[in-house]
Amino acid sequence: MIDFQTSPQQYKHWKLEFDGPVAYLTMDVDPESTLKPGYDLKMNSYDLGVDIELYDAVQRLRFEHPEVKSVVMRSGKDRIFCAGANIRMLGKSSHAHKVNFCKFTNETRNSIEDASEFSRQRYISAVNGTAAGGGYELALATDYIMLIDDGAASVSLPEVPLLAVLPGTGGLTRVVDKRKVRRDRADIFCSIEEGARGQRAVDWRLVDESVKGSIFNEEVSKRAHEFAKASDRPSDAKGVDMFALKREFTEDTVTYDNLDISIDRDGRVATITLHGPKEAAPSDMSTVEAQGAHFWSLALAREFDDALLHLRTNETEIGTLIFKTQGDGSLVEGYEKLLQDHADHWLIREIVLYWKRTLKRVDMTSRTLVTLVEQGSCFVGILAELIFAADRSYMLEGQFEDDDRPEATIQLSAFNFGPMLMSNDLTRLATRFLGEPETVEKAQALIGKPIDAVAANELGLVTDAYDDIDWEEDIRLFLEERVGYSPDALTGMEANLRFAGPETMETKIFGRLTAWQNWIFQRPNAVADGGALKLYGTGTRPSYDFNRV
Amino acid sequence: MIDFQTSPQQYKHWKLEFDGPVAYLTMDVDPESTLKPGYDLKMNSYDLGVDIELYDAVQRLRFEHPEVKSVVMRSGKDRIFCAGANIRMLGKSSHAHKVNFCKFTNETRNSIEDASEFSRQRYISAVNGTAAGGGYELALATDYIMLIDDGAASVSLPEVPLLAVLPGTGGLTRVVDKRKVRRDRADIFCSIEEGARGQRAVDWRLVDESVKGSIFNEEVSKRAHEFAKASDRPSDAKGVDMFALKREFTEDTVTYDNLDISIDRDGRVATITLHGPKEAAPSDMSTVEAQGAHFWSLALAREFDDALLHLRTNETEIGTLIFKTQGDGSLVEGYEKLLQDHADHWLIREIVLYWKRTLKRVDMTSRTLVTLVEQGSCFVGILAELIFAADRSYMLEGQFEDDDRPEATIQLSAFNFGPMLMSNDLTRLATRFLGEPETVEKAQALIGKPIDAVAANELGLVTDAYDDIDWEEDIRLFLEERVGYSPDALTGMEANLRFAGPETMETKIFGRLTAWQNWIFQRPNAVADGGALKLYGTGTRPSYDFNRV
Repeated sequence: MIDFQTSPQQYKHWKLEFDGPVAYLTMDVDPESTLKPGYDLKMNSYDLGVDIELYDAVQRLRFEHPEVKSVVMRSGKDRIFCAGANIRMLGKSSHAHKVNFCKFTNETRNSIEDASEFSRQRYISAVNGTAAGGGYELALATDYIMLIDDGAASVSLPEVPLLAVLPGTGGLTRVVDKRKVRRDRADIFCSIEEGARGQRAVDWRLVDESVKGSIFNEEVSKRAHEFAKASDRPSDAKGVDMFALKREFTEDTVTYDNLDISIDRDGRVATITLHGPKEAAPSDMSTVEAQGAHFWSLALAREFDDALLHLRTNETEIGTLIFKTQGDGSLVEGYEKLLQDHADHWLIREIVLYWKRTLKRVDMTSRTLVTLVEQGSCFVGILAELIFAADRSYMLEGQFEDDDRPEATIQLSAFNFGPMLMSNDLTRLATRFLGEPETVEKAQALIGKPIDAVAANELGLVTDAYDDIDWEEDIRLFLEERVGYSPDALTGMEANLRFAGPETMETKIFGRLTAWQNWIFQRPNAVADGGALKLYGTGTRPSYDFNRV
Repeated sequence: MIDFQTSPQQYKHWKLEFDGPVAYLTMDVDPESTLKPGYDLKMNSYDLGVDIELYDAVQRLRFEHPEVKSVVMRSGKDRIFCAGANIRMLGKSSHAHKVNFCKFTNETRNSIEDASEFSRQRYISAVNGTAAGGGYELALATDYIMLIDDGAASVSLPEVPLLAVLPGTGGLTRVVDKRKVRRDRADIFCSIEEGARGQRAVDWRLVDESVKGSIFNEEVSKRAHEFAKASDRPSDAKGVDMFALKREFTEDTVTYDNLDISIDRDGRVATITLHGPKEAAPSDMSTVEAQGAHFWSLALAREFDDALLHLRTNETEIGTLIFKTQGDGSLVEGYEKLLQDHADHWLIREIVLYWKRTLKRVDMTSRTLVTLVEQGSCFVGILAELIFAADRSYMLEGQFEDDDRPEATIQLSAFNFGPMLMSNDLTRLATRFLGEPETVEKAQALIGKPIDAVAANELGLVTDAYDDIDWEEDIRLFLEERVGYSPDALTGMEANLRFAGPETMETKIFGRLTAWQNWIFQRPNAVADGGALKLYGTGTRPSYDFNRV
């Protein structure tokens, strides 16, 4: 089992240091601490284990360090920034592992950009040596790239000439779309092994600054402190301790404080139930701060995030995820109100951003997503986004005879109309009703009002509503039918239906770039025994099938 | 060799009939007239041969029939509109053929949408029976879908449940992005074999009208005549005879009137030289009309289009296309002026739109594209787009000692700043200079002035400029290096670098959807001996690997 929980005390590959408002996040990969046997993480190359620590560090910088206003990503190795994803690891990995690995690393890089833009914790790369492939892609995810000018240090994307695959973590897209490098220069840059350095790297927009070695560290620190000044993060707030999540695993269940997973292996279905708060929302921010990561909104976000990552990585045969909620909707409403009332508070801002990112992780999860709105559920505001994130959502009309939990309702809040943007930069409701924008307005007029099954179905908020007589049979039939389809075709179909409307850099990375990479990851030129990934480092050149497709 | 030249006299699968301003394009596929042996085209299913005729018909309707203002696409079979791409053909095809087939059919459907929108020749589908898979996708490419209401006729996309692949010609994208079907309904629609019919098909936005059988033909005709009234196409103009192109093939060359191809098989490079006009542009439109398809701008567009399709389909081992021009730039300028002065004339509009579509075909061609701007070239206006469409463009500075052809220049025109939009809806120059929009303005100020190599390089219009001493060596080195790379990785890289900036329905179809389909076309669940495509029709259900990737 691959575990996404870690902490700085356990880090093997990263170091966190602080200089007032500036944090230094230093990559110093231990070659022997690999996630799986069979490869060494030389030259600051990484595997999923290294990236899990990076993700943890990025999260902790947001929550545990409100005073940190800019983050310098740098290397602890001499003359090497980062050599990218470990090639021997890729060569030995299953297709599923490669794809999942790329997805998680992409999400982590997006979360770095999200921190720069929305948490006002601006990331800088201090590239002190070779930044190759995924190494340069890591730098591309930061907001500002400083490259040491020592006649040797370079940035490069050598995947195509060297490995017959694409840069897998957004490199191609970020080069032309984020850094807006001219496409013929991008073509040159991506087809030479040696990359670019010095003034040329600046002229071609590949880095922001080329800085002499003698003043490099000093200039990096200067720039970081300068960026920190522009941040609105508080200097005197107390961070939140992101303690280890309490989890209990059995063969078919995982139990968190506020969430549980139960798996039906024959049906290849996992049900995730998110539980509402047990008590009323705190009445003031000092209580929220005192509760810290026990504060329900944050605790549930962390557990949900972990649950999604666990299922994606460790339960690849599960084809369908069912989302349910259980709890007192009026208590959830209280938390929603608190989040709205204190939207400008740094901690609340972080919690809301965390939910936004976690819901995007839902969107990007290549499993069939189904939300069931049942008796006793609490689909209020942010939790209601799960209804609109799902491929299908079904709502129970009325009550079962032997069940006295309250009838199912949905309750919208301001969070459904702005803060939880999908990666296409639209709300889930705007995406849902692309063909009937007036319905979004109708829904907005219902904010704060419980909407029952008949009304929700009428308005189009759910796929369908069934009464107690049909409910179980209809849901069962759908789940059984779905589980029989080719998972590859479903992955492709869902990826194409979920993101109607405009595309953005993010959807390009997950849609266009990822799909091409997945294709290439299947092609003999890359992955056959005589393919480039397998032969890398052996001294033997691959021989390609030169048919262009 | 697959030939893209045909004519209505040779059609085996389509019929063209006319009723004043309305044309009827009737699909009546001959099951036995297949492009390759081993399958029958039953139930109006199609192979590339059927689609080549469709493309020809769409082109002729534009050029030979200015009086046609709306086109009804219908079926000549009873109770069947079209069953989509032939599955046995797909099951027997190579990966390269499947991918090329999907690309051409996608381009043809896009050209139908282009006709509806820009040629003001609006396409209607009269769906008189089952429109399944590619059959419904064909209807989706038209502007208005009328479905017969006879209790049986339906539209459907059964690929995922039935064949473990995606609808391959834009169906998923058009359902959510063009017709804006709610995503959970789209999910249902795309995962049931039987599709939708009657009022439900209308309510779900899948079709525009459901019409009783007794009045179907009458209503279709009424609607078509109604749409025709809104068109600005002339009722009394004379069409242009699209005679068969004159071509001479040798083993390594193809020669057209205004274009030639020469192939270097060892280097895996094809050079396409487009020749400028031999004489001055006509001084008035009546001469243009009299010249018809001999008019240089139209003749060259047709030849270029045919050359691209030929190379893509019949020369799959050629990895690099080099574009060159030769001719008198001042004569080209005269033609450009004529196209601008008569932009509102129906024929000129068609010629300009044809160039736009053909240049998009260049963008979508998955080969490395290189444009060489040499002595004696005539890169003026539309032809200069080839410089910006290429992955790399190199320009000769000065002259070779023994060559007295004029020095290379580039000359921009209004056509570089609007009419030739890429599928991302930006001009090639705007895409090129996404990071420095001020350069587009600088370039615009140079319209009509010859720009030499030093100036073009300085401005960033070309990748680089070399003098006569370096020219041959530098170009040779680049071509040799390129040809050694994995063609799959190059295809993926180029597809990701060419389309910076916004995405549109079209780029989604070619980027996101196509890449996913290509991936699925490689997956054992679809294409292995026990995969769904291979087992279709045998009565044996495929057994899938259920790992989700």
